[in-house]
Amino acid sequence: MSTARKATAGQLDADRPSAVSRASTHTLETVRDDTGQVTSVVRRTQLPSGLRIITEQMTGARSAALGVWVGVGSRDEDALTHGASHFLEHVLFKGTRERSALDISIQMDAVGGEFNAFTAKEYTCFHARVLADDLPLAVDVLGDMITDSVIAPADVDAERDVILDEIAMHDDDPDDVVQNLLAELAWGADGDLGRPIAGTTDSIEAMTPEQVMDFYRRHYVPANTVISVAGALDHGAVVREIERAFARNGWLDGTAAPLPPRHLAIESRPLVRGGEGRVARPFEQVNLVVGREGLDREDERRFALGVLNTALGGGTSSRLFQEVREIRGLAYSVYSFASHYTDSGIFGVAVGCLPDRTDEVLAVVREQLALIAAEGITADELARGKGQLVGGMILGLEDSGSRMMRSGKNELIHGDVMGIDEVIERIRAVTLGDVQELAAEVFSREELLAVVGPEVRS
Amino acid sequence: MSTARKATAGQLDADRPSAVSRASTHTLETVRDDTGQVTSVVRRTQLPSGLRIITEQMTGARSAALGVWVGVGSRDEDALTHGASHFLEHVLFKGTRERSALDISIQMDAVGGEFNAFTAKEYTCFHARVLADDLPLAVDVLGDMITDSVIAPADVDAERDVILDEIAMHDDDPDDVVQNLLAELAWGADGDLGRPIAGTTDSIEAMTPEQVMDFYRRHYVPANTVISVAGALDHGAVVREIERAFARNGWLDGTAAPLPPRHLAIESRPLVRGGEGRVARPFEQVNLVVGREGLDREDERRFALGVLNTALGGGTSSRLFQEVREIRGLAYSVYSFASHYTDSGIFGVAVGCLPDRTDEVLAVVREQLALIAAEGITADELARGKGQLVGGMILGLEDSGSRMMRSGKNELIHGDVMGIDEVIERIRAVTLGDVQELAAEVFSREELLAVVGPEVRS
Repeated sequence: MSTARKATAGQLDADRPSAVSRASTHTLETVRDDTGQVTSVVRRTQLPSGLRIITEQMTGARSAALGVWVGVGSRDEDALTHGASHFLEHVLFKGTRERSALDISIQMDAVGGEFNAFTAKEYTCFHARVLADDLPLAVDVLGDMITDSVIAPADVDAERDVILDEIAMHDDDPDDVVQNLLAELAWGADGDLGRPIAGTTDSIEAMTPEQVMDFYRRHYVPANTVISVAGALDHGAVVREIERAFARNGWLDGTAAPLPPRHLAIESRPLVRGGEGRVARPFEQVNLVVGREGLDREDERRFALGVLNTALGGGTSSRLFQEVREIRGLAYSVYSFASHYTDSGIFGVAVGCLPDRTDEVLAVVREQLALIAAEGITADELARGKGQLVGGMILGLEDSGSRMMRSGKNELIHGDVMGIDEVIERIRAVTLGDVQELAAEVFSREELLAVVGPEVRS
Repeated sequence: MSTARKATAGQLDADRPSAVSRASTHTLETVRDDTGQVTSVVRRTQLPSGLRIITEQMTGARSAALGVWVGVGSRDEDALTHGASHFLEHVLFKGTRERSALDISIQMDAVGGEFNAFTAKEYTCFHARVLADDLPLAVDVLGDMITDSVIAPADVDAERDVILDEIAMHDDDPDDVVQNLLAELAWGADGDLGRPIAGTTDSIEAMTPEQVMDFYRRHYVPANTVISVAGALDHGAVVREIERAFARNGWLDGTAAPLPPRHLAIESRPLVRGGEGRVARPFEQVNLVVGREGLDREDERRFALGVLNTALGGGTSSRLFQEVREIRGLAYSVYSFASHYTDSGIFGVAVGCLPDRTDEVLAVVREQLALIAAEGITADELARGKGQLVGGMILGLEDSGSRMMRSGKNELIHGDVMGIDEVIERIRAVTLGDVQELAAEVFSREELLAVVGPEVRS
């Protein structure tokens, strides 16, 4: 069932003789404001090693955000290495040949930088946000960590305890528990998308330094990496700083084409079963998700799903907020969401409510899904949904951090960064028919129901 | 023990005949970048009614953020009205004479605006962030809500259920539980700072529509309100829009001086006792806070406390992160914090750990506090702490939303918005002696210890 890419970067070196031998640079997008003034320019450089660099120079910015995106996540693991991607992400902060863990922390803290990392099912991201003058420092620290970390067994052991504590923290968070349960229901406890990203207590206790090091060597290669930078910057200078900082340990040597995005290597789509699961926890609230198999990342209908998601549960004027909270007072938190992966996805409705409201909440949610599947949404909802998506996107892209996230993730995941104007055009092109057809299809799929909370008395 | 202001705006009308009868406008700050170009201008207008308007015009911004700050919070309540400020904040979204709850939601959602509110112990804030063209709409909707809400008994009852569910949600969040316990230990369960902001299940079940309406009439008056706007804007246009939108219901009629900030009306400081409290919860983790009485908002030593806080537990290079997480692997989350109120404050260290690590965590935290109290911090830590505070502040003020938060809160709380350059100067002026003297005083105060988690077996 696994759809993880079989090829590693090393194999691709041999398979793809078309790899360029010199850096190539292109301008992807020039954004202007209403007066015609350039507000941002997106450029892309591909190095001979297969490393891709995307910058977005933002007029008037004082900060710069830097992200290193590596195409490895929990779905690239198996039962033996479950949690290795996240474990590795932690261990890379423990020191390089040049810097101790404390050196890394001191240098980034001294400039007030935001500096962190996260691991997802299909990628790992290290990111920093600093004042423009400190960008070279941030590039150097991240370059050092990505290319020349030590991964000492003693550090792996110390970090093991930290990760076990992090898992315990997630176990105390009702949202995390219900989302993990939902993934397990959808893709199976052994499915590569069904496992929790951080691993389990058992898999983390059993993880060896060699397994962590093996993940580092296999996956942290230039052809599997995208670096995105946004804010106050000069593209050429950024490329030169990256070429210097990431050259450690011979990391940029050799030529390769970038690893193709995962969707070009899909062998089969994972089956999403319906089903119901409950985890009994002595919480005050019941947290539940009513879900369906959704759309994968490349599905052209994802823009229609965005509008549908907004109309159903995307804001305080949405059907679910109105029906569940405003009219009936059944819950404080209610919303819908769409998660996308290379070859699968989930559409869900999440609610937290008092235990004795659970049945009524479920009835209202199911009724609204059936209603939209049968009748679609109204013309007003369509217009409002589009306005909300477009306005929210523009508002959400005002800072350097969110621009960096957008370009890095898109280049790694899709192998392309769609222009903002094109995204807006795709949203505006969604029709009432698109939404209804999609709702009719998705909402007729078998129901997933994940419930976490106190034991229900019957 | 209460230090809540005794005067209401109505009384002040009569007490303060010096109230200006015409609007007055001043420029508070003009910020320039390294090349001398103006990047932002802060202006202040006071209307005859006592309403204060602070705008920050940001060069190059595409969005605008709007905040309405009302000087009422949970500390202005008593046992009978406990939770009224937060309840009222919810009910104001339920409709005006002109707009239903759904109208309000639809209008803000349609433009993709971020639109929300929060209640604190000393103030309530309603805020929106929209594209610049939509600012007049946001001003109109918020003006309508603040001045002309209906507060229908049926809406109060419907929202009561939502708030009870919100309280249950907080009860499931270990951080919220431990912070509420800490406040109760510090200021007492009946102290105006010791009560949880949202109220209790009992107080919310007993709240009447009349009590909520009474809070609205008494506290939502121009002299007790600050409106802050930041982003792409024109000050004069914003003032005119506010004068129009907030004129409903005669709200801007009459003349008054702004209510003085709370610190000018302090009668006595609340006593902060030391003490220990435990709440048994079947969580996986133990969440604990080791605290001390800290500093109030006006204390000149708050800049030194900022540096101390940063060095002790403000980043990954801090002593606590290094000693608790990096060296010993005892916890995933460990940090220190300083909370400030008009006449009191708490300095605390928060840790989440596995239950069997609790004793070791406590020993390490106490050892570090004692060490810094005895020896202060190093010159390196001082320099790094200042760099981190200054860099973090500049990075944190890049978007319109955070600028709006800064100016609105400061005008309401301090009666003044300190220039960013002055804040930086104050931080840079902190000496090693300042930090050690402060640490010696604060850390020698009686310990507060709040612990939430599974029953400890002994």
